[in-house]
Amino acid sequence: MVNWDKFKTFVFDLDGVIWNYPEVIEGADRVINRLKEIGKQVLIITNYTSLSRENLVKELRKRGIEIEKEEIINPCYVLALNLKGNERVLVIGNEAKKDLEEFNVNVVDDLPADILFVTHDMQFNYEKLVLGFKALINGAKFFASSLDKEWLHGKERVPGTGALVKAFEYCSNVKAELIGKPSEYMRFAMELNVLSPRKEVVYFGDQLDKDIAFAKKSKYFTVWVLSGIGKKEDLKKSKAKPNLILKSLKEVKI
Amino acid sequence: MVNWDKFKTFVFDLDGVIWNYPEVIEGADRVINRLKEIGKQVLIITNYTSLSRENLVKELRKRGIEIEKEEIINPCYVLALNLKGNERVLVIGNEAKKDLEEFNVNVVDDLPADILFVTHDMQFNYEKLVLGFKALINGAKFFASSLDKEWLHGKERVPGTGALVKAFEYCSNVKAELIGKPSEYMRFAMELNVLSPRKEVVYFGDQLDKDIAFAKKSKYFTVWVLSGIGKKEDLKKSKAKPNLILKSLKEVKI
Repeated sequence: MVNWDKFKTFVFDLDGVIWNYPEVIEGADRVINRLKEIGKQVLIITNYTSLSRENLVKELRKRGIEIEKEEIINPCYVLALNLKGNERVLVIGNEAKKDLEEFNVNVVDDLPADILFVTHDMQFNYEKLVLGFKALINGAKFFASSLDKEWLHGKERVPGTGALVKAFEYCSNVKAELIGKPSEYMRFAMELNVLSPRKEVVYFGDQLDKDIAFAKKSKYFTVWVLSGIGKKEDLKKSKAKPNLILKSLKEVKI
Repeated sequence: MVNWDKFKTFVFDLDGVIWNYPEVIEGADRVINRLKEIGKQVLIITNYTSLSRENLVKELRKRGIEIEKEEIINPCYVLALNLKGNERVLVIGNEAKKDLEEFNVNVVDDLPADILFVTHDMQFNYEKLVLGFKALINGAKFFASSLDKEWLHGKERVPGTGALVKAFEYCSNVKAELIGKPSEYMRFAMELNVLSPRKEVVYFGDQLDKDIAFAKKSKYFTVWVLSGIGKKEDLKKSKAKPNLILKSLKEVKI
């Protein structure tokens, strides 16, 4: 059994760990609320951009999870952190603009743009493809929140952000730089927000490559939960070896 | 000088040879109309699917080019030719449906589908991406009219059909089979429609790989015209050696 007391910072991936949208994974609410009650640091690190952090907080609170906006690290925050000046950022996305504007990013709706930032976008269309393509052939840098092939919308499999990214890459011949997990940009942003020494940090994730290997680079204690898309068989194929494997957060007794 | 008299069938690529949309390339109207007047066979072979053959004929006639629908070989015709039974075809595209229905293809607007056919689509959106993705993960075969990276809309560079194809390929892990030029499907369709012996066929194209190499496989006499996107420097890099190079159809004296 793990002695959870020794950890001071608890980092959670969102999808497959806290919820399988729209349902909270059993135990996630109890664990997070309890951690905050006893004064532990809680962070959510996610590539999710369909909702702004503000609206994500609302959705999580509706489901009984007491979280603050500042406890969420998403690709919008990471991009904002990595801007050097007042670059004009053209955004493809559902609600990423909201987050970026809150971080005082210079978001533009038209050309010229210095950066194209592609996030998940269920209102994606050809017009947006044309606009982003023009930004890229005119020299904009290209960042992506995620390269996911697919995504679960409720129980429905739908194309992930990666599909949109590939459309832009193909026509423009410009390769996107990933800013979400498991990029070094995201890892730096995580480390910046973790208040405890590495030895006192535990990371919960459901994907071996995107979560476990990622957190091991930061030398955190890693817990692989099987409540998301990862399956036990994946362990043989992967180099990422978690410190602990649990069925879900339900098994965390604190 | 070439003796054009010896050819009985004249095959033309559309973009860059007959028009740079919306403008006809000087000489194209004169050459095509004259060929038909003196009883030569004229064929247009194109990956263009933004307009149905019927509407393409209208656009060409508006510009003084006397062409019949049956003289146009496009990817819709080629797909129809290659269907084995009454396969249900889900179409992503502007006007491809119109053509397919005319060829009695069983076009469906929803799942289930046996084939996903991606053509150029300026009304492309995430909803269509979801639908096609579902068709593919449910086992539909995947055909593409073109893998073009970009396309000229007037003088404006816009993303080509290939960008849409890559989005579907990436999320579904299903590779598209090209049905347009320079595929063997298209070459077979061309040969099927050419009424003259190979030696009496001349092919005019503006791209070395997509046109000249393609037509040389059929052993036609090839004319590379520099009125499209091809540039003289390309010749060194390409294995496709045209029989003749002309600035444009203006130089064809018949």
